[in-house]
Amino acid sequence: MKEVRVKLGPRSYQILIAPGLHNQTGALFLEHTLGKKVFLISNKTVFSLHGGTVCDSLKSAGFKVKEIFIPDGEAYKTLHTAENIYAYLAAQRADRDSTIVALGGGVTGDLSGFVAATFLRGINYVQLPTTLLAQVDSSIGGKTGVNHQKGKNMVGVFHQPRLVLIDTTSLSTLPQRDFHSGLYEILKYGLIYDERFFYFLERILTSLSKQDKKHLDEVISRCCEIKAEVTSQDEKETGFREILNFGHTFGHALEAVTGYNLLTHGEAVAIGMLIATELSRELELLDQKTSERIGTVIRGVAPLPSIGKLNFMEILETMEHDKKRKDDLIHFVLLKRIGKTTIRKDLDSELIARVWNKVLLANPSLSAG
Amino acid sequence: MKEVRVKLGPRSYQILIAPGLHNQTGALFLEHTLGKKVFLISNKTVFSLHGGTVCDSLKSAGFKVKEIFIPDGEAYKTLHTAENIYAYLAAQRADRDSTIVALGGGVTGDLSGFVAATFLRGINYVQLPTTLLAQVDSSIGGKTGVNHQKGKNMVGVFHQPRLVLIDTTSLSTLPQRDFHSGLYEILKYGLIYDERFFYFLERILTSLSKQDKKHLDEVISRCCEIKAEVTSQDEKETGFREILNFGHTFGHALEAVTGYNLLTHGEAVAIGMLIATELSRELELLDQKTSERIGTVIRGVAPLPSIGKLNFMEILETMEHDKKRKDDLIHFVLLKRIGKTTIRKDLDSELIARVWNKVLLANPSLSAG
Repeated sequence: MKEVRVKLGPRSYQILIAPGLHNQTGALFLEHTLGKKVFLISNKTVFSLHGGTVCDSLKSAGFKVKEIFIPDGEAYKTLHTAENIYAYLAAQRADRDSTIVALGGGVTGDLSGFVAATFLRGINYVQLPTTLLAQVDSSIGGKTGVNHQKGKNMVGVFHQPRLVLIDTTSLSTLPQRDFHSGLYEILKYGLIYDERFFYFLERILTSLSKQDKKHLDEVISRCCEIKAEVTSQDEKETGFREILNFGHTFGHALEAVTGYNLLTHGEAVAIGMLIATELSRELELLDQKTSERIGTVIRGVAPLPSIGKLNFMEILETMEHDKKRKDDLIHFVLLKRIGKTTIRKDLDSELIARVWNKVLLANPSLSAG
Repeated sequence: MKEVRVKLGPRSYQILIAPGLHNQTGALFLEHTLGKKVFLISNKTVFSLHGGTVCDSLKSAGFKVKEIFIPDGEAYKTLHTAENIYAYLAAQRADRDSTIVALGGGVTGDLSGFVAATFLRGINYVQLPTTLLAQVDSSIGGKTGVNHQKGKNMVGVFHQPRLVLIDTTSLSTLPQRDFHSGLYEILKYGLIYDERFFYFLERILTSLSKQDKKHLDEVISRCCEIKAEVTSQDEKETGFREILNFGHTFGHALEAVTGYNLLTHGEAVAIGMLIATELSRELELLDQKTSERIGTVIRGVAPLPSIGKLNFMEILETMEHDKKRKDDLIHFVLLKRIGKTTIRKDLDSELIARVWNKVLLANPSLSAG
């Protein structure tokens, strides 16, 4: 079993990574002195695959488990779904000692975390992420939230989990496209924080992208370590944590403009990372050779899907509305070298447009069809 | 000007108390380096009395102020009202540097605080409480929240304000019943924490209950000090802070059972304090003389309103549903002497019923009509 500790004073917590970990849920809940009333939030698909193991383990350890099913997809990560959960929790007399468990991907984790953060002004929650993206990113760091008609994750709070349990066998049932989506975020950690890790990923990429399990636990745990280190230093994203947004400024805008249904989050981030890398080269922060090397690795995961014809001005406007915006400037996380970032807020839209066209040309699958 | 500091490490803040303080809002915002975009949340009645002064002061100091009006009353302290505010904030491009200002009583403060806590995972907010109850209680301590069909304040978070500005001249427009409602909470601080303060209040009660301004700033600032000391020691109500619930276990249940329209919050707490005092005497924690003295002071504020005929079992059931409940026991804050509390969780319903009947007999106005 691999263990990563997120150091946040009284809000510190453990991330445990191992195949078959769901079997130990009950024992680990006892060890972490969690309350006896457990509310497990999941969607029916994920629950049918992993819910039985988790519930059995909790029940044999003496926990009372109630299941709460939410519909699948970002479209249901709303205040409305949260309200239904509050009503159920109240009816079941959930109290301050109750624990919310999120079993699923990022949508389940974000929504469950938000409910846990806001029910009775905050109760315990535990993350059991089942997608690669959730395991290396959204389950760690305490960001919780729901979407609002006017913006993704517009309503939310920081609320740290009490424990994160990553059962890597759950990835064997993950669709390939979702697996690749997680891989892009994994590459991000190397690019922004750890050169050696990036080169290691480059070497094993072919087998990794085929879901080879050999290095999986090691890779996931290194990502958790990096995310833990970054978020410990800047829990509420007042500065340093912003490096995690590499590829996300442009990526989020792309997701919004394509209606959140053409691209997975990871694919949007992959395109955003290509843009950010090319911007770094245009600004002569990166040399040509390095930027090409990065592009090759990102493209090496899988062909990027077609996004058809997009209006660049729409992407630009969406970036300007993005909540990462502060002081009315668009913040871009760029690379000075592999493993080292810099933030730029003064990029003009002409440069961004030029780079966007270059990336489209270099990735013909994007505009195909 | 009186100043109280709430010590919470990086979340520490100042409470400033003075007549005419609204005039200095702009200067104080500059001093506290708050962002230039200000969203002032208020209801139309309060705004017509105090909004002009506050906005003028902010605007002359260079702040851009947008007003957001919410309907008056607990019935509108809901997620639905919060959603409307989120939509407006998004449309006005509020960002992480924006500040939310709550101008009004407890409803405005709780709701505005909740919106500030959850919009973009938390932005700054400043409290400008205009009722006595908000000035001595709800504006301090970081409790924010909205009501849910299934429970008052069921959805909320702890989110500390950046600053609390108490303009005591705003009390001159406060209806007498609301003023008395605040007075009951003021008496609570003496009873749970400061014997000398209670005796002082006892001496000045006749003039104070007639809204005599002479000692008002001093009294309010002592209450703020006590609330600041208690909440600094236990920000998230894991233990010590519970003493502030003196009179509230029973009071909250009474409010709920009477549909939140027969009693003000302060009146419900006053009745709850009479119950808690009588329970303390029955359990021989307090002597007869002291319990009578306390009863005389509480009754001295004003005659308590009629609540008609209530079903005691309904009050009991509501207490059992109350969110303060943990470990499935009803927690009662009782008095060992004036200024010193103790928590009891083992009270049987027969004792509570007996005490309830005694209090009804001693306060005939309660069951009149």
